Amino acid sequence: MITKNEIKRIKSLQNKKDRKELQLFVAEGEKTVRDLLKSGWIAESIYVTESFGNAEEKLISSKEMERISSLKSSSSVLGVFRIPIQQSFSHEGRILALDGVTDPGNLGTIIRLCDWFGIATLICSLDTVDCYNPKVVQATMGSLSQVNCVYTDLVSFLKNTDKPIYGTLLAGSSVYDEPLDSEGILLLGSESHGLSEEVKAYIKHAITIPRFGSEEGAESLNVAIAAAIVLGQAFRT
Amino acid sequence: MITKNEIKRIKSLQNKKDRKELQLFVAEGEKTVRDLLKSGWIAESIYVTESFGNAEEKLISSKEMERISSLKSSSSVLGVFRIPIQQSFSHEGRILALDGVTDPGNLGTIIRLCDWFGIATLICSLDTVDCYNPKVVQATMGSLSQVNCVYTDLVSFLKNTDKPIYGTLLAGSSVYDEPLDSEGILLLGSESHGLSEEVKAYIKHAITIPRFGSEEGAESLNVAIAAAIVLGQAFRT
Repeated sequence: MITKNEIKRIKSLQNKKDRKELQLFVAEGEKTVRDLLKSGWIAESIYVTESFGNAEEKLISSKEMERISSLKSSSSVLGVFRIPIQQSFSHEGRILALDGVTDPGNLGTIIRLCDWFGIATLICSLDTVDCYNPKVVQATMGSLSQVNCVYTDLVSFLKNTDKPIYGTLLAGSSVYDEPLDSEGILLLGSESHGLSEEVKAYIKHAITIPRFGSEEGAESLNVAIAAAIVLGQAFRT
Repeated sequence: MITKNEIKRIKSLQNKKDRKELQLFVAEGEKTVRDLLKSGWIAESIYVTESFGNAEEKLISSKEMERISSLKSSSSVLGVFRIPIQQSFSHEGRILALDGVTDPGNLGTIIRLCDWFGIATLICSLDTVDCYNPKVVQATMGSLSQVNCVYTDLVSFLKNTDKPIYGTLLAGSSVYDEPLDSEGILLLGSESHGLSEEVKAYIKHAITIPRFGSEEGAESLNVAIAAAIVLGQAFRT
């Protein structure tokens, strides 16, 4: 059983404003919810359509789950989690920095990719999509607890770091010749506008992913795909 | 001005059954529509909210565009294109083969990636999402005309080819040690189930993308991301 007020509250968490006010977000799917719990994230409530083995779970009907889910085909588990307090973050090792990435699927995929390669810190400009957006959480497939997503003024961050800064630009050295340094920051731009001029100014190592297709072909790569290719080269052993 | 029947017909093209029956699909966005036209694809009609310089265009209002668009924020151009007749395809060079990829965004991203790397042929199992699905067309960013997407019985295709077959599996040689051969086929599985057992049997070269994250971290990569990393290594010069 779920009350009307609970439904309203959970649905309100689809909006960034309400997430910020309540400091809560929604994670759906058994794997994602289990991964967050395993990493010590605190669930305020867990709604299930069949028992999931958690002492705090609340059994609801499939119809009720459909009402609170933001997915087309709802899962059997939905957790309402507390947004962890942003801690100081590690400046060690490779760091990814996003400039205005707005597509939730892309951000989620990038978080999953960081987790795969053991990248602990993901710097997000203030206009990057919120990492607690339900579509982002969904696309991370549980990796959200493994990567510290830090929302900050990107220009100040770049100004104050002494790490080497890499950026993917159309004209640069081939990523095959200049892989991302083990202490490097990789800057990635928005899907539609690329890197902003203000941010570009901080790039010390302009890198390019060589294109092999025809002249008429693709002019750019998806931002998560570009990140994957650069990281794939960086971790070449 | 657009008639009710036109609206109904265009909206029906969001369904695979209707696309198949009418042999038409919808492409939205100026870049995508221009790229398809430039590649010689035939538009049955082009709806625009501001002139686009095409002799056949039909000017409609923004409200009308919203009604026919499948996008959240509609673009200024929507083209209804004829689905090209599936021709025989090139067996030369690297080929990607998809086994049951169902996420439209992933298929679109993979088509764009093929275009970038000049991969001419993408084999799709019959249960792979339709490449004329509006979300796929959107994610290709105009690359659809550059890559031949061939829907066929994947097992028969693999049975009858003499090209070396590569597949990403959890246990395999590192992709850094065994890059995809210039005549190789790269098999990629579905987001949720990976490669089917039937298809796995044809893999001659099992490859793995090494993971560098913590033990608790990501268990898998998004299928388009895995493709990007494997191709990134293959094209290393």
